[in-house]
Amino acid sequence: MSLDNTWFTEIYAKENSAFSLKITEKLFEEQSPFQRVEVYQTVSFGRLMTIDGIIMLTDRDNFLYHEMMSHPALFTHPAPKRVLIIGGGDCGTLREVLKHPGVEEVTQVDIDETVTRAAIQFFPKLVESNDDPRARLRFADGIKWVKEAAAGYYDIIIVDSTDPVGPAVGLFNEAFVRDCHRALSADGLLVQQSESPLYNLRDILLPMYRNMYNAGFQDVHSLHFPQTVYPSGWWTATVARKAGKVADFRERDAATKPFETEYYNVDIHRGALATPEFMKRALAGL
Amino acid sequence: MSLDNTWFTEIYAKENSAFSLKITEKLFEEQSPFQRVEVYQTVSFGRLMTIDGIIMLTDRDNFLYHEMMSHPALFTHPAPKRVLIIGGGDCGTLREVLKHPGVEEVTQVDIDETVTRAAIQFFPKLVESNDDPRARLRFADGIKWVKEAAAGYYDIIIVDSTDPVGPAVGLFNEAFVRDCHRALSADGLLVQQSESPLYNLRDILLPMYRNMYNAGFQDVHSLHFPQTVYPSGWWTATVARKAGKVADFRERDAATKPFETEYYNVDIHRGALATPEFMKRALAGL
Repeated sequence: MSLDNTWFTEIYAKENSAFSLKITEKLFEEQSPFQRVEVYQTVSFGRLMTIDGIIMLTDRDNFLYHEMMSHPALFTHPAPKRVLIIGGGDCGTLREVLKHPGVEEVTQVDIDETVTRAAIQFFPKLVESNDDPRARLRFADGIKWVKEAAAGYYDIIIVDSTDPVGPAVGLFNEAFVRDCHRALSADGLLVQQSESPLYNLRDILLPMYRNMYNAGFQDVHSLHFPQTVYPSGWWTATVARKAGKVADFRERDAATKPFETEYYNVDIHRGALATPEFMKRALAGL
Repeated sequence: MSLDNTWFTEIYAKENSAFSLKITEKLFEEQSPFQRVEVYQTVSFGRLMTIDGIIMLTDRDNFLYHEMMSHPALFTHPAPKRVLIIGGGDCGTLREVLKHPGVEEVTQVDIDETVTRAAIQFFPKLVESNDDPRARLRFADGIKWVKEAAAGYYDIIIVDSTDPVGPAVGLFNEAFVRDCHRALSADGLLVQQSESPLYNLRDILLPMYRNMYNAGFQDVHSLHFPQTVYPSGWWTATVARKAGKVADFRERDAATKPFETEYYNVDIHRGALATPEFMKRALAGL
């Protein structure tokens, strides 16, 4: 069966698979100095943002990614106050981080202001916390930002990036991970989006584990969650901790969280830490 | 972007989304009295079986579904001996159930022998336990089979069906669920594939919970797992227990299982029982 141009299709060439959403119109298109940002109206997923033809998010299912990129780390650090988001220009991760009352300052550093402008115009729910006095939006090179950060300044760094192509390539290098380690406080955690366990175990996940351990992190652990619009429908956030185990989180605080979520809760957090057998075997060979 | 006829595409019309796999050839096609069974060679997912144009399984990712339809229930019943599989003609669930040494008899009742013939020819790994002396393959109407079963005969019934269309419609009715309850022993469990939490909460999952509770089951609980080739990439197996809680399973036995798996382990089992916030809220209104 063929899909005509009433569908937006993303082909994941490495695995010869594709995911498609039926669309009614293109709402936005801009070639920034860094990448091509587009917004479509879909029939059943609300609005869709793409970068260079790759699906970034939809209204319908972004809650999975944004909640899992933020709450597990924030309920693992003993008392996170300063959070840095690298990328994340759609502001959805920022909104989730700001739900934690103990957080004093969240700096979002995305290289491309176009993404945030598109979010403000077409994804009003994602940007609803942008005026929080604790939020600082910066449009700059995240790699340089981390390199120049004061040592030990941040409690949590969240790398909310695109796939490792275009401006995001450097975010998957060991040098960047070492700079993150240096910029984190003694209890600090690094969270990085780490693609699909089914598709990217050997080309993304295992190299990321090696980089994180080489940079000096004591423990590295991936959290698994569904993500319909990303390749394979199965995604991970990989968390590296400077001291202690990633799996040791503040379960009582997570169970009594003072805010609403759509996906995350204490059982989901614990469950997301489970590692499939095939991945355990691969990690044993690190 | 358009996909040409070198792709097999399944459109999920209700949600205006589609999933595609690049194929090289059609290996098998047969219109049985019940449905159209086809097998394709894909580029990156091994072989693909479809029924009436709907993806049933691929070599690459069927381990997720087959392991999660079997091992959680088998490690929850205190000592399962007699297992009935309704549907499951590809024999993958049968193979997983037979990995449990305490099981004495597994009866697989699929209405369509064409599915099993196609599996024998094109999916040799799935049928590798078909000659186990404990396995009984029957090609018959599963609804009638359960209705005529001796009361209390089976310890576990696994409904490994297609979506609720065609011959599978009756497997989603309360009358069938009542017959399963009657055919199960006092400790018995019913497992039913229950589609996607993102796409099918209101049209499949909530009605299934109602049917199971109405039929007299004491506890009902869904297990979540990724499934790349099914709509939304996120799937559930819903388990109903005649006595006791579904979440109380034999954790020690699961942790020391005497067989290999690709996905399932004790942590995955516990994690799969976690219920997302949006689903908790929906279930609270049952």
